[in-house]
Amino acid sequence: MTNFKLYCFGESGNAYKPALMLQACAVPWQAVFVDFFNGETKTEAFRRDVNIMGEVPVLQHDGRTLTQSGVILDYIAEATRKFGYKSEDERREILRWMLFDNHKLTSPVASLRYLITLMKKPEDAVCDYLRKRALGALGVLNAHLSDRSFVLGKRTTIADFSLCGYLYYGEELPFDLEQFTHVMNWLDRIKSLPGWKHPYDLMPRKA
Amino acid sequence: MTNFKLYCFGESGNAYKPALMLQACAVPWQAVFVDFFNGETKTEAFRRDVNIMGEVPVLQHDGRTLTQSGVILDYIAEATRKFGYKSEDERREILRWMLFDNHKLTSPVASLRYLITLMKKPEDAVCDYLRKRALGALGVLNAHLSDRSFVLGKRTTIADFSLCGYLYYGEELPFDLEQFTHVMNWLDRIKSLPGWKHPYDLMPRKA
Repeated sequence: MTNFKLYCFGESGNAYKPALMLQACAVPWQAVFVDFFNGETKTEAFRRDVNIMGEVPVLQHDGRTLTQSGVILDYIAEATRKFGYKSEDERREILRWMLFDNHKLTSPVASLRYLITLMKKPEDAVCDYLRKRALGALGVLNAHLSDRSFVLGKRTTIADFSLCGYLYYGEELPFDLEQFTHVMNWLDRIKSLPGWKHPYDLMPRKA
Repeated sequence: MTNFKLYCFGESGNAYKPALMLQACAVPWQAVFVDFFNGETKTEAFRRDVNIMGEVPVLQHDGRTLTQSGVILDYIAEATRKFGYKSEDERREILRWMLFDNHKLTSPVASLRYLITLMKKPEDAVCDYLRKRALGALGVLNAHLSDRSFVLGKRTTIADFSLCGYLYYGEELPFDLEQFTHVMNWLDRIKSLPGWKHPYDLMPRKA
């Protein structure tokens, strides 16, 4: 298998999703640093040559360029035959949680951390709005995990890698994650997978 | 094929996505009205019996209960053999745009319309924040549609039904959609599919 090349940067939980999965699959991969904080993803060159959506992660492999973390996770599952679905019903159950993650969980969590922690903006109405949505989504995930080890049951899948993307940033998260006991226990289970690393130990950051 | 049963309400663009697709597939389906504006999706009974995520749409068919519009579109494509993917690369390209839709387009567009048009809240910082994100996502879609008829090229797919979900509400959208010429032309193309109806002519509303 040729090397996977992942466009990423340390602060991106969306890039962490496939980075963590590549680690857990124990396949060789190479990180390509994207200088997000100096506007690289907003440049015309990046949109033209790498991703019209102006976002990381981007995965290049075997002549393909793939974008959107959920698509990349799906592709790595097919390429490695690990952490994927075993039936069409499983494929749709994974898709259900990846869509929920993108729309309801990652979206407000990532935006809130960006504003408060990375941009150091003062708390305002936007933060209240995002925090309420983030906590609502975490409540849904917590309820779902109350009687199962992983999102699909007993087995780790790409749905877990998607949903956990922003949740290992610890003190950078501007809300109390520890109130969600089942989520915390699930994060511990993912953390014990061979190869697990913190986002900042896995992806390059600006010096 | 047994009837499809779709939990929905007229104001939900997310429910419109599968409702429009069922129309375009010309299969029999039944709408089950969900009283969202009186809090039905937030009740314990709804979360327990219908959808733990507390959202519409929900599709019931052949003993299955499916949630998340993207999952439902995927399922209808498989059941009807219409508007789906023809290869794994197409499946992932559709997934890419459905994830983009959920995360970047539908999320701010639906939230902004909800606050301004449906809840009649005054413009504030949250609206500015959502409008900026909605317009950014529409710009990406507009650029993508500048040289193709539909999201995947020449053929209508479930990616189109996903992305257009909130864009037929016309004057209810609190921003200028007409500036996005390629998006407007694409909406006209979808509108000319046999069976097309406006969301309010397709799904029940509170009297």
